[in-house]
Amino acid sequence: MSITVAVIGAAGRMGSTVCQAVEQAEGLELVARLDVGDTIDVEHLGGAQVAVDFTVPGVTEANVHALVDAGCDVVVGTTGWTEAAYERVREHLARPEAAGRSVLIAPNFALSAVLAMSLAARAARFFESAEVIELHHPDKVDAPSGTAVATARGIAAARAQAGLAPVPDATQTDLHGARGAVIDGIHVHAVRLRGLTAHEEVVLGNPGEQLTIRTDSFDRSSFMPGVILAVRQVGWLEGLTVGLDAVMEM
Amino acid sequence: MSITVAVIGAAGRMGSTVCQAVEQAEGLELVARLDVGDTIDVEHLGGAQVAVDFTVPGVTEANVHALVDAGCDVVVGTTGWTEAAYERVREHLARPEAAGRSVLIAPNFALSAVLAMSLAARAARFFESAEVIELHHPDKVDAPSGTAVATARGIAAARAQAGLAPVPDATQTDLHGARGAVIDGIHVHAVRLRGLTAHEEVVLGNPGEQLTIRTDSFDRSSFMPGVILAVRQVGWLEGLTVGLDAVMEM
Amino acid sequence: MSITVAVIGAAGRMGSTVCQAVEQAEGLELVARLDVGDTIDVEHLGGAQVAVDFTVPGVTEANVHALVDAGCDVVVGTTGWTEAAYERVREHLARPEAAGRSVLIAPNFALSAVLAMSLAARAARFFESAEVIELHHPDKVDAPSGTAVATARGIAAARAQAGLAPVPDATQTDLHGARGAVIDGIHVHAVRLRGLTAHEEVVLGNPGEQLTIRTDSFDRSSFMPGVILAVRQVGWLEGLTVGLDAVMEM
Amino acid sequence: MSITVAVIGAAGRMGSTVCQAVEQAEGLELVARLDVGDTIDVEHLGGAQVAVDFTVPGVTEANVHALVDAGCDVVVGTTGWTEAAYERVREHLARPEAAGRSVLIAPNFALSAVLAMSLAARAARFFESAEVIELHHPDKVDAPSGTAVATARGIAAARAQAGLAPVPDATQTDLHGARGAVIDGIHVHAVRLRGLTAHEEVVLGNPGEQLTIRTDSFDRSSFMPGVILAVRQVGWLEGLTVGLDAVMEM
Repeated sequence: MSITVAVIGAAGRMGSTVCQAVEQAEGLELVARLDVGDTIDVEHLGGAQVAVDFTVPGVTEANVHALVDAGCDVVVGTTGWTEAAYERVREHLARPEAAGRSVLIAPNFALSAVLAMSLAARAARFFESAEVIELHHPDKVDAPSGTAVATARGIAAARAQAGLAPVPDATQTDLHGARGAVIDGIHVHAVRLRGLTAHEEVVLGNPGEQLTIRTDSFDRSSFMPGVILAVRQVGWLEGLTVGLDAVMEM
Repeated sequence: MSITVAVIGAAGRMGSTVCQAVEQAEGLELVARLDVGDTIDVEHLGGAQVAVDFTVPGVTEANVHALVDAGCDVVVGTTGWTEAAYERVREHLARPEAAGRSVLIAPNFALSAVLAMSLAARAARFFESAEVIELHHPDKVDAPSGTAVATARGIAAARAQAGLAPVPDATQTDLHGARGAVIDGIHVHAVRLRGLTAHEEVVLGNPGEQLTIRTDSFDRSSFMPGVILAVRQVGWLEGLTVGLDAVMEM
Repeated sequence: MSITVAVIGAAGRMGSTVCQAVEQAEGLELVARLDVGDTIDVEHLGGAQVAVDFTVPGVTEANVHALVDAGCDVVVGTTGWTEAAYERVREHLARPEAAGRSVLIAPNFALSAVLAMSLAARAARFFESAEVIELHHPDKVDAPSGTAVATARGIAAARAQAGLAPVPDATQTDLHGARGAVIDGIHVHAVRLRGLTAHEEVVLGNPGEQLTIRTDSFDRSSFMPGVILAVRQVGWLEGLTVGLDAVMEM
Repeated sequence: MSITVAVIGAAGRMGSTVCQAVEQAEGLELVARLDVGDTIDVEHLGGAQVAVDFTVPGVTEANVHALVDAGCDVVVGTTGWTEAAYERVREHLARPEAAGRSVLIAPNFALSAVLAMSLAARAARFFESAEVIELHHPDKVDAPSGTAVATARGIAAARAQAGLAPVPDATQTDLHGARGAVIDGIHVHAVRLRGLTAHEEVVLGNPGEQLTIRTDSFDRSSFMPGVILAVRQVGWLEGLTVGLDAVMEM
């Protein structure tokens, strides 16, 4: 018995890659491709049990509500969600007519990136020092990356919970700002280099030893194993889940 | 209230470093230093609650039994233990007069090395490919390192449990053996380079993405945070525990 | 004044990428695209000063002779050349009617790969230890890569010239072959990992220090800067040149 | 025939390590150890052909002049030299009575660090992007390191000479300064991590490819091969030479 899947935003760059990935995945069957102009209802969804939304911030929330109403579990890769929007989805899912439906919204589907963040937080409490270096292509407009900020926050929270002192740093002179950004006490550095895509390195240090956790995303295909995993697992979740971690059971 | 500590093998390279580390650690008090020729009994242990044994394979088992008899919890860094010797310690600890005593034997106290192994096993099931590269000083007589073999076995076990297919490898021609050792289906490479101490890199790959976990031990001091952690936690364990993982609660 | 360029094998994967790169390069003008079935002569070359051949081993030698006869300088990226074929090109270029013509044949146009090899050979004589690790996608059928073998040979030659002793290696036990291939005395390791393309790392070690030179080729576009450089410089060469190094003036 | 060597500052940390290294080096003979309070003259230098000065900024210039007067060639590892002090040494060496004497002053004797700088400058003109990441122990008071600044300047100079455009960087938002220091147009990042000593990584990028040059100094012994090389070669130089590069013939 395959899981039947609909892709919303099927004509976009990510959406079309998702369609390919679903078609190639064992145990999944692509039954509908919807894009701008298509109505999201039972008729157009072709009996899909799971819908994957890779559209745009302006429509993704309405899509999710409509997909739940049509009886789908939903996996969302579109960005731009706010806490208020999450809350509205939670309320929508709490209604009796949505019983058994689940929605998974993930800002990042790259397994190695999600794992790096999770492993770094796990390891952080055992180390005196921790810093984050993210490296991206030079066309990126913001620094540091959202993933790097989230990674630093996760490390800082783990350190705080373990009662660690601030990271040691004797720097007295840094006229040009070489020590980078400081996010919750953790230094974060952003490299921009032609040829790169999306990379992150977490370095953790103790007297005489270092632990390095590095993730490299070389292209868009790196998101597909995470999307496929989410499609397979979303049916086991309940209500709203944010972040891929939940289905990675870590 | 400090934890009182005795060091057995206190005159050796590791033992003397342990003495220093205990003296500097907050909440620990060094109350006895024993070495060759010293009797291990209540009198000479100076009221130690925990004893740390860094001696030699020929005497460590007898030391552990004597230390348990003297009422100590024991942390052991000496190598050369066999499964039969573990069993004899288990039986010794199961006797009514040893009630409440615990023994922790760890082949490796470097937190980053133990973590790398544990994190690699955790991440392995999400990746199609996995290989291990270990790098050591050129005076090491065996290859690959015991840690690399253990890491490969941990990865292989995690893959098997997740039902993964063998790692992909189209190699048809490898006249000189460049693909390295194969341990439980995982390729392991050993580099020997002047200037290095003990290092290990685990590389995990999926289409379009890579996760790298690397550990560097630069010198003997890298074992001390693990020893101190073990001294602090051994009292919470029961019976015999093998491996530092247990006290890292991961 | 632009340099006018013809691409031979213009419909192939590499050829079509070269066409794009030439069109986008400042100071270069694409004047002819030839492929299977097109005659290589003055008429079809559209006045090209430089021709770039990315065809197949079976026809590239005949193409080069025809291009020289048509008055072009030639840049060749096709593989499969033998020393005998090189010699026939040298003789062809030595004829009076070929005066001023030049041919550059390069097995690898990735600047970073060519540089890594050259820099490693330059640095090698200052280090006691040296090893090579190459990493590729798991569909590669041979190990180690030709580039890694060439790199190891270059390092070995530089060490021999400097009178260095063999690399130190105390390994006595290596049942599974973890120490990898030995090429001219240099250990070479081959990793095969899904997600990777073509990568090489040279590690050089002395007491207390390490130098690492690493090259990553993420995709086919990595060859274009080298091709464009060759097109710009081939006119300054004389006769036959093998390898991109010559135009990199290193 | 050995080269006879005197060490000035022989009781200091670096000086005593130099004494050991000279004693172990083939073809070198340690004939004098001078320190605070010893007069630098022919009598106390024991016939040394080469003197190595690892003292302190306040006395090194006077030492060098006295050593030249005593007929020695001089290798200097003490820091704190100014351009004016260099000029006074040049004038001192230009006098007829100093004919044939040479002085080599090097801010850094770690071969891998000097090589990394030199190789990075050599490679820089072939790449669209370049950044520098230096990593040190957390007790260092200044950031970025002098070596990183020198490396960035060397890269910038090579790019300028090759007529390269500024490095691409679309960053519009960097509230926390994650993009680091900018030295002559090259971004420099400084990491401070317990367990590290002195490390530097230069990353160079083009479409689809990356070249990385990394140097690791694990301890003080890493300076000795450079010092020994300088002692062997200083006699072949003339006048004043600044930087180890000259004797590395690169």
